[in-house]
Amino acid sequence: MQTIEQLQKLLETAIQNLKFPDQPKQLYDPITYIINLGGKRIRPLLVLMATELFGKNANDSIHAAMAVEVFHNFTLVHDDIMDNAPLRRGQATVHEKWSTNTAILSGDVMMVEANKNLAKVNPIFLKDVLDTFNATAQGVCEGQQLDMEFEERSDVSINEYINMIRLKTAVLLGGALKLGAIIAGASEKDADLIHQFGENIGIAFQLHDDILDVYADPEKFGKQVGGDIIANKKTFLLLKAFELADEASKKQLQTWTDYKTFDSQEKVRAIRGIYDELDIQNIAKESMNSYLNKALKVFDQINVSQDAKSNLLALTTQLMAREY
Amino acid sequence: MQTIEQLQKLLETAIQNLKFPDQPKQLYDPITYIINLGGKRIRPLLVLMATELFGKNANDSIHAAMAVEVFHNFTLVHDDIMDNAPLRRGQATVHEKWSTNTAILSGDVMMVEANKNLAKVNPIFLKDVLDTFNATAQGVCEGQQLDMEFEERSDVSINEYINMIRLKTAVLLGGALKLGAIIAGASEKDADLIHQFGENIGIAFQLHDDILDVYADPEKFGKQVGGDIIANKKTFLLLKAFELADEASKKQLQTWTDYKTFDSQEKVRAIRGIYDELDIQNIAKESMNSYLNKALKVFDQINVSQDAKSNLLALTTQLMAREY
Repeated sequence: MQTIEQLQKLLETAIQNLKFPDQPKQLYDPITYIINLGGKRIRPLLVLMATELFGKNANDSIHAAMAVEVFHNFTLVHDDIMDNAPLRRGQATVHEKWSTNTAILSGDVMMVEANKNLAKVNPIFLKDVLDTFNATAQGVCEGQQLDMEFEERSDVSINEYINMIRLKTAVLLGGALKLGAIIAGASEKDADLIHQFGENIGIAFQLHDDILDVYADPEKFGKQVGGDIIANKKTFLLLKAFELADEASKKQLQTWTDYKTFDSQEKVRAIRGIYDELDIQNIAKESMNSYLNKALKVFDQINVSQDAKSNLLALTTQLMAREY
Repeated sequence: MQTIEQLQKLLETAIQNLKFPDQPKQLYDPITYIINLGGKRIRPLLVLMATELFGKNANDSIHAAMAVEVFHNFTLVHDDIMDNAPLRRGQATVHEKWSTNTAILSGDVMMVEANKNLAKVNPIFLKDVLDTFNATAQGVCEGQQLDMEFEERSDVSINEYINMIRLKTAVLLGGALKLGAIIAGASEKDADLIHQFGENIGIAFQLHDDILDVYADPEKFGKQVGGDIIANKKTFLLLKAFELADEASKKQLQTWTDYKTFDSQEKVRAIRGIYDELDIQNIAKESMNSYLNKALKVFDQINVSQDAKSNLLALTTQLMAREY
């Protein structure tokens, strides 16, 4: 069984070896660009780790891992158009650097490239791999749609929010793990369990992000604390605050989120003040922990040795360990 | 062997039975909308006809046919955004009726739906089917990219143009036929031959369209004659005219294509006048016929009876028979 570091090296080599046609340049250059912006490569790593968890070599699922990474980058390119985002990982987004049309079409061909990688998996597993990948891709699209709709709505419930982040971010973690499991020849039951594990840690990660945005140590966070508050992002924290606030606090929240111009620091301070009064941080942590515990409970049921499980547990801990 | 009419009925039933999720409505409504705008359903018909050509029942390839139709409609949705087109088949385009973001994301999920249909084909053929489908989809994206680039260029050669229409429209006809052949268990050689047949008739069809746009009988054409001329579309005819014109005619062509405001009828008359002087219609017809003949020559080499071939020949004739 390879270490996480070994798997990461394997991944980086495979990513660098991804070959796209030279022409038309305008179509393929953005693919190399977005993929080389980096990122933690968590999703393809999960594919490989699941394969090793079930006793097979990560090389068996390297093509599926590439499919997942290229697909993920495709969603970034199209989401950035829809969200009108100028920057991605500190660099210009594809539609900013080239054009919206280029970003649409390069994104489309990335989806095809993802499918080409997928078609390279062992034909014995191909049908199952495709079904899992397609269900995952569909979920991700639905999640993005809900995310956009929620921006326009003022009555989003916590349940709706959890379902949206499940689709938009968690199903891809679950799907990545399930792909790796399928390719290792895991039983259907184990493949489903690891999928559930992935979905639940995915929701926990997103709640963790929501909390960090407000309560991270500014010195360690790496980006602006309170960014979600400034942008009126309907996170778990904001939705919960609206749910629990009395009339006076609700009015204050509404006033701050309605302001077109405001002092950012003042807004963050005011809204965090309301969160603190309502104990939102702890409520969010409780919810996060409930998803984390659910994840660990299903993970425990997977029929492999504790030893084999240690890598995935270590990664989970590592990803949840970013400090407040 | 079923008649074309029987296959068309089979197709219409299958298209009406395509099921998409109900929610999120904004994501899935545009799919039903665009697919129900109609169209001749030539591409999925070709899938079914190729399967029957090689002695199998069209039902065997109905899912592949749906994949091709849904994929084709996906390209229409995204192309219409890129081309800023307000109308498709006389109705509002998806991005006009909903929004650009909806059109991007609904298009994306249509690509997933196409792949879901594809995954339903007999697993024996799945790998070959995927490889053919993905190569086709990639070609179509490349064709759209070239088409957009050509709009900005003034030095497009006839060879480049033919390559662009090959990718943008002809490879999907070739791909559709090859998918049907693969699913019928045709030999690799026959599958390649029918692919070549499709590509060559595809190019011939497009050249036919280019000619019809200028020389169709207005009473029978169903749309405005000269539409390509009015829009400065770089068709075979315009590119060939620029290639063959003397300095005086070239200057005239340039002047007409540079005008920002003009009388449409006058522009059509003037440019058609230059085409006539240069005998462009016949040159285009010669080129069209050379692709048609190439298509028929490779079709002749396919190793099935003349009787089995009659349906596809009849369809080809029917599609080429629109009058000037």
